[in-house]
Amino acid sequence: MRRFQLTLAYDGTAYAGWQVQPGRPTIQEALEAAVEKVTGQRARTIASGRTDAGVHALGQVVAFAADAPLSCEVLRRALNANLPRDVAVLEVAEAPATFHPIRDARRKRYRYVLHDGAVRNVFALRFAWHYPYGRLDAAAMQRAAEPLLGRHDFRSFETSGAERKTSVRTVFDLAVCRAEAGAGPPPAAPAPAGTRDDWVVLEIEADGFLYNMVRAIVGTLTEVGRGARPEHWPAEVLAARDRRPAGPTAPPQGLFLVNVAY
Amino acid sequence: MRRFQLTLAYDGTAYAGWQVQPGRPTIQEALEAAVEKVTGQRARTIASGRTDAGVHALGQVVAFAADAPLSCEVLRRALNANLPRDVAVLEVAEAPATFHPIRDARRKRYRYVLHDGAVRNVFALRFAWHYPYGRLDAAAMQRAAEPLLGRHDFRSFETSGAERKTSVRTVFDLAVCRAEAGAGPPPAAPAPAGTRDDWVVLEIEADGFLYNMVRAIVGTLTEVGRGARPEHWPAEVLAARDRRPAGPTAPPQGLFLVNVAY
Repeated sequence: MRRFQLTLAYDGTAYAGWQVQPGRPTIQEALEAAVEKVTGQRARTIASGRTDAGVHALGQVVAFAADAPLSCEVLRRALNANLPRDVAVLEVAEAPATFHPIRDARRKRYRYVLHDGAVRNVFALRFAWHYPYGRLDAAAMQRAAEPLLGRHDFRSFETSGAERKTSVRTVFDLAVCRAEAGAGPPPAAPAPAGTRDDWVVLEIEADGFLYNMVRAIVGTLTEVGRGARPEHWPAEVLAARDRRPAGPTAPPQGLFLVNVAY
Repeated sequence: MRRFQLTLAYDGTAYAGWQVQPGRPTIQEALEAAVEKVTGQRARTIASGRTDAGVHALGQVVAFAADAPLSCEVLRRALNANLPRDVAVLEVAEAPATFHPIRDARRKRYRYVLHDGAVRNVFALRFAWHYPYGRLDAAAMQRAAEPLLGRHDFRSFETSGAERKTSVRTVFDLAVCRAEAGAGPPPAAPAPAGTRDDWVVLEIEADGFLYNMVRAIVGTLTEVGRGARPEHWPAEVLAARDRRPAGPTAPPQGLFLVNVAY
């Protein structure tokens, strides 16, 4: 048996998340169906982590074992030809037999995209949280985020219910910035007149994430960004080690798993 | 009666184009339904031009007359609250009673977006033509496009069937370029690893366009970009004044009406 490592991009809009759920469309089910079509074998795929319904991936990492006499390049093409259009295999590599996408992950990076223009951007409906209540103060959000850097107990930013040994995680990077005005309209999601500066992007990298952690952090920082809470408040929420004082969980469509480092 | 001028953005994916067609969803029908809900009046809306099924707009201009005692700002908000999510009013202004969006248009600008990465970008499926047959030579396409600048009979780039007095148009600007590598991933349509330079964008401005003219020009220039035709060929196609020698019509999802100048 050979072990393959895939890098996967997907638009999560139409899916009930990564993990197989009977009767609902999932990325895992779509991928396993494509693997079976291409290799003739029913393989179990393992991802670096589950993504929730509506959450996207730019570089999800997935492994599976199969007895396929195909080159990585041919496998990539064949999988893409058999996957739904909104799921794509970017890379295929052969991995050591011991490779495990969850256990071996050292760091994961997520991005969260907010659009705070007064009028919704019709090209970003699936890929951003439209926040129409006024312009967010991205610089204040950045300052408020700084105390979250480093090794902390993040249970204040966790939706309960998921299994985990500890709620301590290390955040290596956490940046909030307004997308640059000079960056120009993205070719694929053009900016209608006067809207090209209306994006706030959060990027966060950690050794792992609790359930809904990024979305709870975004929902909390947004309270600062709109002026409802002071800049020192997210640090207090962190220290409370209690989900209740934190801000709401931001909606899924703004969230992207950017990459996983091994 | 007051005359209103709207600037409209829409994702055309779900629509059979601008113009009302019985039994099919159209932008015009959605807008007129919203106008009726907001003003209580059934008004006929007129756009600067029809867009086809699947074609998008960043700044379509539409006019209608209504007896509504609303400010432009209130009207904008009310229309947006009553429109489908994939259609948005960017601006509302009061226009002179004589204003006519078709007759008074001086220039229109369109953009066409191609993605020529080997693997489809799952975030751009609705907003670009995926061209997976190899990297296009954007510089050759730009050189091949230059003879189309100026005043010419463009009937070689027209799908027949539409009513028009003349097939002579003046192209003021026509630029083909590869989206800059340094521009960074668009926040709303992030680029999976290694794909951020895989865009070719054509922009064209003219005093008017024949039916399918931009898409026929794109289909023709793409033949040059992939090396199937020499750079001087589009000039020959133009001179032939015959649709048959031209390249195929590019698909609608890459096309955006950018703006209309009055």
